[in-house]
Amino acid sequence: MEVKIVQKVMKVNDELAQGVRARLAEVKVACINMMSAPGSGKTSLIEAALHALKGFPRIGVIEGDPDTTLDAERIAACDAPVVQINTDGGCHLEANLVGRALNGFDLQQLDLMIIENVGNLVCPVGFDLGESKRVAVVSVTEGHDKPAKYPKLFRSADLVVLNKIDLLPYVDFDIARFRGFVEGLQPGVPIVEISCRTGEGVEAWCEWLRKTVAGA
Amino acid sequence: MEVKIVQKVMKVNDELAQGVRARLAEVKVACINMMSAPGSGKTSLIEAALHALKGFPRIGVIEGDPDTTLDAERIAACDAPVVQINTDGGCHLEANLVGRALNGFDLQQLDLMIIENVGNLVCPVGFDLGESKRVAVVSVTEGHDKPAKYPKLFRSADLVVLNKIDLLPYVDFDIARFRGFVEGLQPGVPIVEISCRTGEGVEAWCEWLRKTVAGA
Repeated sequence: MEVKIVQKVMKVNDELAQGVRARLAEVKVACINMMSAPGSGKTSLIEAALHALKGFPRIGVIEGDPDTTLDAERIAACDAPVVQINTDGGCHLEANLVGRALNGFDLQQLDLMIIENVGNLVCPVGFDLGESKRVAVVSVTEGHDKPAKYPKLFRSADLVVLNKIDLLPYVDFDIARFRGFVEGLQPGVPIVEISCRTGEGVEAWCEWLRKTVAGA
Repeated sequence: MEVKIVQKVMKVNDELAQGVRARLAEVKVACINMMSAPGSGKTSLIEAALHALKGFPRIGVIEGDPDTTLDAERIAACDAPVVQINTDGGCHLEANLVGRALNGFDLQQLDLMIIENVGNLVCPVGFDLGESKRVAVVSVTEGHDKPAKYPKLFRSADLVVLNKIDLLPYVDFDIARFRGFVEGLQPGVPIVEISCRTGEGVEAWCEWLRKTVAGA
């Protein structure tokens, strides 16, 4: 009986996600869904892209968090339109929340919507939000074993970001093993190494965003 | 209707957790439930305690992960009895899983059971596992805002570990703000600062574990 209920929730979510996807396609807005553990640097990656891209593509941001508007305030400080979704302790975003958040934007003025999901490597993975691409972020401080432990995210990602590479000299992180784990789960998925502190890799991240917009 | 089902699941979990609690009390085994984001260093904290405590208290470990036995292998290498629970993608441990894991130990030979929950700051919090104490772990690379964003864990923790303090010189982490966030959520909860790399704070962590065993 419980399984039936779960299926119903997922079916409703999938339908709502298709609605989000159709609405964004109509106005030619690409959409990415960023997922990672808490504190992997998703907000910093968005800030870095906003600074480096200097207004093109035009980016809107949806911030998901269990509580607070701390991340949305950081994005607003970059002069980008942003809507915060507080899940009130909930562990992932769902398409109905994203659909409502879209009402807070002038979509005609945007080329790309970036959704920052709740910091969680498990629960967000099962919920389609209507995105065109998925980005998985791991920071080097979390350990190279994360793809093996949380395989579902890495199987469904269109881009893997390895973040905080400026900290590599101070942690036990084996990049070759990390790449091996990712490659084993999804051969050929691009992996970009980035440090938002030093700026290394930010141009590759921006280039991937530009291509995503061009392909939408 | 969905809410009713959720309540039923929680009620069943609470009953099973009481069973775990009674079973551990009978053999005088204390139990802690460690929760954090993925990659905060829970396994390293357990390894450090096993090395420093040198066999007393006698510790058993239950490892929770969505996939792999990587963490259990690390604990087994420390010569401690360990049972891995793979949740097959599930986002938290539940009391029925812990109850079954207990069957893998000779409880008469233990003083303390350490449960390493699935790396997730949201979902594990609502599930009583039969523990006597809860430990919340945050590493300095995750940012000082984590208690504010994930308040439920920090309201229910008996100990907060601030881990990886050897990385403080390389990250933007404001300890005073972190302590302020924690204090605002639960005044007086102890906060221990630890680096498993340098050994700083490991003795305080061991002392807290000894006291927890003494109080069980």
